[in-house]
Amino acid sequence: MPQITGVTVEDVRFPTSLTGDGSDAMNKDGDYSAAYVVVHTDGTDTAGAPLTGHGLTFTIGRGNDIVVAAALQQATRLVGRDVDEMAADMGGVYRFLTSDTQLRWLGPEKGVVHLSLAAVLNASWDLVARRSGKPLWRLLVDMSPEELVDVADLRYLSDALTRDDALRILRAKEATKAARVAELARTGYPAYTTSAGWLGYDDDKLRRLCQEAVDAGYGYIKLKVGADLDDDIRRCSIAREIIGYERKLMIDANQVWDVGQAIDWVRALARFEPHWIEEPTGPDDILGHATIRRAVAPIGVATGEHCHNRVMFKQLFQAEAIDFCQLDTGRLASINEIVAVLLLAAKFGVPVCPHAGGVGLCEMVQHVAVLDYVAVSGDLTNRVTEFVDHLHEHFTDACVVRDSGSGTAYVLPEAPGYSTRMRPESVDEYRFPDGRYWAATATPALTGGQAPTAVGL
Amino acid sequence: MPQITGVTVEDVRFPTSLTGDGSDAMNKDGDYSAAYVVVHTDGTDTAGAPLTGHGLTFTIGRGNDIVVAAALQQATRLVGRDVDEMAADMGGVYRFLTSDTQLRWLGPEKGVVHLSLAAVLNASWDLVARRSGKPLWRLLVDMSPEELVDVADLRYLSDALTRDDALRILRAKEATKAARVAELARTGYPAYTTSAGWLGYDDDKLRRLCQEAVDAGYGYIKLKVGADLDDDIRRCSIAREIIGYERKLMIDANQVWDVGQAIDWVRALARFEPHWIEEPTGPDDILGHATIRRAVAPIGVATGEHCHNRVMFKQLFQAEAIDFCQLDTGRLASINEIVAVLLLAAKFGVPVCPHAGGVGLCEMVQHVAVLDYVAVSGDLTNRVTEFVDHLHEHFTDACVVRDSGSGTAYVLPEAPGYSTRMRPESVDEYRFPDGRYWAATATPALTGGQAPTAVGL
Repeated sequence: MPQITGVTVEDVRFPTSLTGDGSDAMNKDGDYSAAYVVVHTDGTDTAGAPLTGHGLTFTIGRGNDIVVAAALQQATRLVGRDVDEMAADMGGVYRFLTSDTQLRWLGPEKGVVHLSLAAVLNASWDLVARRSGKPLWRLLVDMSPEELVDVADLRYLSDALTRDDALRILRAKEATKAARVAELARTGYPAYTTSAGWLGYDDDKLRRLCQEAVDAGYGYIKLKVGADLDDDIRRCSIAREIIGYERKLMIDANQVWDVGQAIDWVRALARFEPHWIEEPTGPDDILGHATIRRAVAPIGVATGEHCHNRVMFKQLFQAEAIDFCQLDTGRLASINEIVAVLLLAAKFGVPVCPHAGGVGLCEMVQHVAVLDYVAVSGDLTNRVTEFVDHLHEHFTDACVVRDSGSGTAYVLPEAPGYSTRMRPESVDEYRFPDGRYWAATATPALTGGQAPTAVGL
Repeated sequence: MPQITGVTVEDVRFPTSLTGDGSDAMNKDGDYSAAYVVVHTDGTDTAGAPLTGHGLTFTIGRGNDIVVAAALQQATRLVGRDVDEMAADMGGVYRFLTSDTQLRWLGPEKGVVHLSLAAVLNASWDLVARRSGKPLWRLLVDMSPEELVDVADLRYLSDALTRDDALRILRAKEATKAARVAELARTGYPAYTTSAGWLGYDDDKLRRLCQEAVDAGYGYIKLKVGADLDDDIRRCSIAREIIGYERKLMIDANQVWDVGQAIDWVRALARFEPHWIEEPTGPDDILGHATIRRAVAPIGVATGEHCHNRVMFKQLFQAEAIDFCQLDTGRLASINEIVAVLLLAAKFGVPVCPHAGGVGLCEMVQHVAVLDYVAVSGDLTNRVTEFVDHLHEHFTDACVVRDSGSGTAYVLPEAPGYSTRMRPESVDEYRFPDGRYWAATATPALTGGQAPTAVGL
């Protein structure tokens, strides 16, 4: 019954480059940003407040305005839509938003128009979950196998996963869903931390943060590597000294190596027994990842935060290129594409360990991880979801991680929606370039990007 | 000595959806468009006119403004650069433009930021060719092997093509370059036509255009297929009836099939003996193309117009997924990435048959095809470059195709630059949304896309 009356898309940027948070071998100076979509309606939610939907995709600064412009073009098409009709056919909403072949040309299904589509669909899923009064994971696990498959985009996947395959996977988990929900309500979903290991941190800070991670109950800790081998050896030594070998250490190269170089470098770090090497080379290089995986085993290969769509994941699985699937909730086209990837991963037996951090990604991945365990994979073996402890203060329903006794874990979210509503005062402060923070800041390195059509003339 | 004083980027859109030109099974209503970059300097060209550089990427309508916004952010970084210093280090220009890791996040190396990068680099290459007084192909074939390899982006390729491999390939062609230039000056570079076979054309128009193509001397003709199998059978029958079996017939599905469906459909058309099936499935599906190729041989598999970067082409070659490489001059990051793909194709023995049509693509591909034959592959076997006869009237140095006696061919361009300068009066007419044509047109289906930050509120 409620109708969508309008949409807003905001360019929100946080000046994270000032502190080195998020620094890695590829991305040295990111300003963590969000293209933030709000869908407005004339209805109210189950608590009587105005019914709205909130979604975002994550970028690292310049160009966030370009994603905002694309998201507005896509979101505008939702104005006038009935929310209950959307909720009953989110597969149709997805097909409607992706049916603009003129915009499709700009990808297809990749880059800016796919990032912006993720933001718009994330807002749509938040909207329908709020309308139902449920957290998104609950809305999804309450769906029948047929309903869940109907929202998934299975196009181009049938050589690896048919609709019947998908139904078979989901039906096998149907009877035991409630037990897994109850389990997660007790234990939470296992988390690991990247907060300790950014490349821009000095050795003392690395040592201190590793100790804090141990004290907080983390069993998995990730370090950034790939800028300098001697530095990496020293940093891995420090990390192992603090966390010991009973905890797992992951390393992340953020795409800086060619295939042969990746193999040599990872072998040089093998004595630190990494659990996985993440993004060892270019994210499009499916066959390259497969070559690296064969060469560095038993060290696992992980990738996915820049894997732009389900067709790429399909091939990473077909080529036996990865041990861990790190899908990204801001890069894939929301739940519709994520469900397809979860199903593929289940069929090929690859654990999903979603990428998080950034802005709002932790808030979203907790829903995806729970969906995967409860309804799709039914398995926690080798599953652990990234947690990075910054920028949560800008969300009204921030995720919570807690040491439940068996290691640090995400607490099952209970608020309605996708946990992606930003605090209005945060948006006002960090909206680029006119929010209070940016209006008061004249740091040219951090700004730029509001484009006229000519420069210098 | 001349310096870049400013850049302009224009959103130019032609209302091609009104006539069905360019219609295929995926893209039914494209408005052929260009994100058009002009680089202005304080110098003069060898003819004494103001020295400028002109480049574009091609889109099909909505969202062209998004590419324009991205191109302006990238092109702005060139303001103040010395043109002669650029000309001496175009590899450095490429690395400078791609070194913005914040913008890189929006791809990486794909989608809007890669399309816009292509436009900016195309303008840069046009600029340095005009500065030298040479057509771009000549500037490139006059380079030594070392100089040409220095402009190429070989990152992420070393498992398939090393710098030494690249030098070996180029050196083997060095001594005979002049002979091949002389040959092409006589014969031109072989062309095929897609103008006959757009899906939106009725049978009479198809019949008439096939006959016109035969009369014009074409030995290769391409039809769009994939919307309806009975229609395809009828249309292929008509085409074969007119062109006979001594000419080659190509078919193009524009990505509409899943892998298994592609195999079935192509087999159902096999009796028409297609030379190749183009874009049988999603452009990211390297392994899917390989599966299709094995299943439909001896019909060749062609793809590339949506292949977004050299890493994808590397894998298409490694997986033996394609028989024809249809690289696109608006999608790859200009000559720097194209040279890398030409070298890969030569190493793997795959003929390059560039994608053209659109806006300005024919103007550009003629330079690439000549470069490939003269300096890289040294081979015309199975090589033929697409030609589509529309929108050339908007370019000051439009390409020319002519029947030289041995089939229709592109005439070797002799004007300085990359042939990518649009007529100022065309830009004034078709600039969106304020050019004379669009200002006088109120066709909502064709418009949209100048984005504010909120809609409906």
